[in-house]
Amino acid sequence: MRHTISVLVENQFGVLARVAGLFSGRGFNIESLTVAETLDPQVSRLTLVTRGDDQVLAQVTQQLNKLINVIKVIDFIDASHVKRELALIKVRANRENRTEVSQIIEIFRGRIIDVSPESFLVEVTGDEEKIAALIELLVPLGIQEIARTGTVAMHRGMQLLKTARNEKEKVA
Amino acid sequence: MRHTISVLVENQFGVLARVAGLFSGRGFNIESLTVAETLDPQVSRLTLVTRGDDQVLAQVTQQLNKLINVIKVIDFIDASHVKRELALIKVRANRENRTEVSQIIEIFRGRIIDVSPESFLVEVTGDEEKIAALIELLVPLGIQEIARTGTVAMHRGMQLLKTARNEKEKVA
Repeated sequence: MRHTISVLVENQFGVLARVAGLFSGRGFNIESLTVAETLDPQVSRLTLVTRGDDQVLAQVTQQLNKLINVIKVIDFIDASHVKRELALIKVRANRENRTEVSQIIEIFRGRIIDVSPESFLVEVTGDEEKIAALIELLVPLGIQEIARTGTVAMHRGMQLLKTARNEKEKVA
Repeated sequence: MRHTISVLVENQFGVLARVAGLFSGRGFNIESLTVAETLDPQVSRLTLVTRGDDQVLAQVTQQLNKLINVIKVIDFIDASHVKRELALIKVRANRENRTEVSQIIEIFRGRIIDVSPESFLVEVTGDEEKIAALIELLVPLGIQEIARTGTVAMHRGMQLLKTARNEKEKVA
């Protein structure tokens, strides 16, 4: 089963390698990963998507929680949340197919951010399924290059992933 | 100086930890990192933003190129390119300030994707400077939580970051 896990970490050398190592050491492949600063420049938020045995993954997130420099871990599996990623897609667009490509992009609320005589560079956001659906439509038209950010997630409503460093959850 | 580096890697256990380790081992902090699949499910594209001495960084990217499982490395510093990231921002929005918050979000072409009695959940895309400018405006209104994907980059025009695995550049 696929899991989206967010981890708040102190922004220090080597934390990323340790977190990534914990997953790869247990045989989990990381399908996507994003790491960026939060409002607190000393804290980064890491979001990863992985797939595997739920029980083993629960063990890994427990171990994560015990890592020094890890502030908080959440597996979004049960909570009501939104997931989004951004994709840059360079697609072949010449005089012949430019109208067709533009229409598809508009349906997906994408934005054309660069144009060359032979291509469009498109920015689009959505959950994995939406991005996958757009890619499926564009592949026959000629995708030249693609760069995806990977998923970030956030609770709906008023629930927060607390960031205070003194609120680290105790895990037995 | 800040660098945006994209790396095409074979999608295997441990590659991510090795790449991250190469930077942290040389004292480079990774400001943001994204990893996601490309069109070829066996190839992932990793984009990282780091800051530091140009010469040392050139050595690190040379070392990266020599890593097994690394297909191609590009430092976008000289090339004409676009950079984009996505941010989810949960901002306080009650009856009093909802109009003001909505106006700011509209100016930045953000999208409100969830609403609660006390907050908006906003999706916005742009380069780092645009995201930073929006955050600066929203902080006084009450940002409750933020999740950024980190930057992805792509050449403008027709230049491509080739993905063929047999085209790995030879580095002396």
